[in-house]
Amino acid sequence: MMQSESTICAIATAPGTGAIATIRLSGKDAFSIAQSIFKSASGKMLSEQKQATIHYGQILDGNDIVDDVLISVFKNPHSFTGEDSTEITCHGSVYIQNHILKLLLKNGATMAQPGEFTQRAFLNGKMDLSQAEAVADLIASNSGAAHQLALHQMRGGFSEELSILRAELLEFGALVELELDFAEEDVEFADRTKLNTLAEKIEAHIDRLANSFQLGNAIKTGVPVAIVGETNVGKSTLLNTLLNEDKAIVSDIHGTTRDVIEDMINLQGINFRFTDTAGIRKTIDHIETIGIERTFQQIVKSRIVLLLVDTRQRLSRIEQHIHQIREHITDQKLLIIGNKSDQLSASEMSSFMDMMQLEENEDILMISAKFKNNIDKLEAKLLEAANVDQLKSENVIVTNMRHYEALVKAQGAIKRVTNGLLNNISGDFLAQDIRECMHYLGEITGEISTDDMLGYIFKHFCIGK
Amino acid sequence: MMQSESTICAIATAPGTGAIATIRLSGKDAFSIAQSIFKSASGKMLSEQKQATIHYGQILDGNDIVDDVLISVFKNPHSFTGEDSTEITCHGSVYIQNHILKLLLKNGATMAQPGEFTQRAFLNGKMDLSQAEAVADLIASNSGAAHQLALHQMRGGFSEELSILRAELLEFGALVELELDFAEEDVEFADRTKLNTLAEKIEAHIDRLANSFQLGNAIKTGVPVAIVGETNVGKSTLLNTLLNEDKAIVSDIHGTTRDVIEDMINLQGINFRFTDTAGIRKTIDHIETIGIERTFQQIVKSRIVLLLVDTRQRLSRIEQHIHQIREHITDQKLLIIGNKSDQLSASEMSSFMDMMQLEENEDILMISAKFKNNIDKLEAKLLEAANVDQLKSENVIVTNMRHYEALVKAQGAIKRVTNGLLNNISGDFLAQDIRECMHYLGEITGEISTDDMLGYIFKHFCIGK
Repeated sequence: MMQSESTICAIATAPGTGAIATIRLSGKDAFSIAQSIFKSASGKMLSEQKQATIHYGQILDGNDIVDDVLISVFKNPHSFTGEDSTEITCHGSVYIQNHILKLLLKNGATMAQPGEFTQRAFLNGKMDLSQAEAVADLIASNSGAAHQLALHQMRGGFSEELSILRAELLEFGALVELELDFAEEDVEFADRTKLNTLAEKIEAHIDRLANSFQLGNAIKTGVPVAIVGETNVGKSTLLNTLLNEDKAIVSDIHGTTRDVIEDMINLQGINFRFTDTAGIRKTIDHIETIGIERTFQQIVKSRIVLLLVDTRQRLSRIEQHIHQIREHITDQKLLIIGNKSDQLSASEMSSFMDMMQLEENEDILMISAKFKNNIDKLEAKLLEAANVDQLKSENVIVTNMRHYEALVKAQGAIKRVTNGLLNNISGDFLAQDIRECMHYLGEITGEISTDDMLGYIFKHFCIGK
Repeated sequence: MMQSESTICAIATAPGTGAIATIRLSGKDAFSIAQSIFKSASGKMLSEQKQATIHYGQILDGNDIVDDVLISVFKNPHSFTGEDSTEITCHGSVYIQNHILKLLLKNGATMAQPGEFTQRAFLNGKMDLSQAEAVADLIASNSGAAHQLALHQMRGGFSEELSILRAELLEFGALVELELDFAEEDVEFADRTKLNTLAEKIEAHIDRLANSFQLGNAIKTGVPVAIVGETNVGKSTLLNTLLNEDKAIVSDIHGTTRDVIEDMINLQGINFRFTDTAGIRKTIDHIETIGIERTFQQIVKSRIVLLLVDTRQRLSRIEQHIHQIREHITDQKLLIIGNKSDQLSASEMSSFMDMMQLEENEDILMISAKFKNNIDKLEAKLLEAANVDQLKSENVIVTNMRHYEALVKAQGAIKRVTNGLLNNISGDFLAQDIRECMHYLGEITGEISTDDMLGYIFKHFCIGK
């Protein structure tokens, strides 16, 4: 196992005051640096202690006691980083945490860069790059679904999928070479069909992974839902009703536009990011126009559009609105929600439902936001629209933009291969595209990496990880 | 060692997202509850593991993996609480922390009350009450001096001092009983002098501890300094100059009165809490009058008064101000600071200094807040005025209000004893006062305690400690 020359340290627990806090050290001198400020109660040296044991004693600054602490000992390669590591668990005051950190720096440790512990774990072969990236995603995930995706990736689920792909590519490469061997003999090559089948299988595999990103990204950052509708149709009431359900996790996120406020709601482990936009109204007033444009911008950014209509209004007016929204819908799911159903009779409701002409990718539901009628059905429709069943059917969902970009490049290369086969291009060209495809897949796992790329990836980690 | 019936759990690291987080379990079922949600990589049961060892594995929610974790095992009585304890170190997302906590609660653990881990440590005799209280002070301390006082107390410094006092009281009690034995024989009791000497020694000992509270409390919460002076004399500039020194820790604390803003400055490990009040000016304007009253209120609350004067003003006017402030000074130290010294010649400065008639407990210094002249001297004078040398000469400084109150009651009892000796009261009465004195000292260490008292003490702790 490689031991870095430098020994890094950082506070690994959340910033601020807690009952306890943990400071991590990793590298060649992790034991001796910790030892230099530690008086063990047992009198034994940390380096003589067994793997994965905990030792009580005092941190000393000269003759002054700084704190009573526990130090955990992890010996290379049996640590997170693969290097010699110690973890100092102290009382959780900010003063003590900073004091111990300063002492470690004074005694030869250097401050860890963001993600440097995980980067060392990657460089020491404890995990591949996609797993290392999943560590950061795991720590950042704030919903059950995002957590499960990150955990699966961290535990090697995506890596396994990529190694299957790689095996398929190797098999394909071998077949191409076989064809090359026979090329000059001008005989009918028996397994042309097999070559085609395999190339299409690989293409479909990469397509599936690349396509999963849209869902994966929505799971990671929250499924974007635009709530639209006229002023006073009850958008705020609906949002509050959804937020006030006890299962909802409420958070305020300020959008890029100051006047767009987002609320996060968690349904069955999936975060939905609701954007409440200004009411849509034909107007010559400038501010209102901005509001309308903003609404259309939010529709473009969303995966689901919740169009709230007031069922007591004239049908022609409602249809006019639906038409206006439809003009801006591309591949979003449109849920038409008839609000204030409490003010309609049952027959009025069903005639309203019947009169609506739904297009593909549209759905309709009658609710009362105020009296909380059918809110459970609305939530079910949101989950359906988010296509979260895909989560269960797919083995791996891509959540990382960098992985997605690499997959798109690999997709381009494999498409050139399948096209090339159709056009009977030379095996040399095929082999080159296969190599390119493997190169981009290798970038995901880090088999292919550059310092710049690693620097870019790990700088987004938190310090201490 | 006593094992509580209930097993408590709590997140012990600071709230929020970190690289890692730790969840604590303590009580009779600490191993079995942790085991019920844990799949050890080694396959071994936690209860079979050795003291102070760390074990890798997965937290499971049914069949779903929640996280890869490390679990530390501490067997009673070799744990912080003295009970069987486990610590689960997981990835530091809030989602994971809460999920694991919920699983523990579902499997039979109960949520720890604030300070309950420390309370159990106290109840199991791992520490006395003053040490337990010092744990909370240690976590809350935000300056070097406050940290040292809390650490010394947690490590038993105060307990030792109290046990010396208790030994003195026991010796005194024995002498009183000896006198009782001879009382009826009407002989001259030889050691009356010894009895007096010992009683006075105990009284002096308690006095010293009780008197140390004023300093202890100032160290704990910051030494209160009122900056006063006329509008435009440079109070804000001086405060900014002090705050901008790189050694200063800056924090904004809103005082009880909305318009009084406090700034904390750290000098050589001591926090000084500066209150910048409105300028003093004779006025009939109501708001200004409030400002002046507020200034006088701040003077009462302070230990040091920094009176800033503009040296370019007429001496009679300056003297009028000093007189006005002196009227409100009781035992505070008054530092008269001649600002804008840069605008005076050397001879003007020394003649200004000479003309000032200083009283006891007063000092004078010429500075330029703007040009940072003599700021180091001002800081030295602040440290001197705070009487921090006492910190080095005294073994124990009392910082806790509850301890102080108990000491004051013990002080009352021992004073009745010394007075009783002067007035030759009966040994029975003396013995009763001695018992009372010991009772109050026992309240400090918790030898004497009630559930109400413990409840009151530990509710101010954070959860997880």
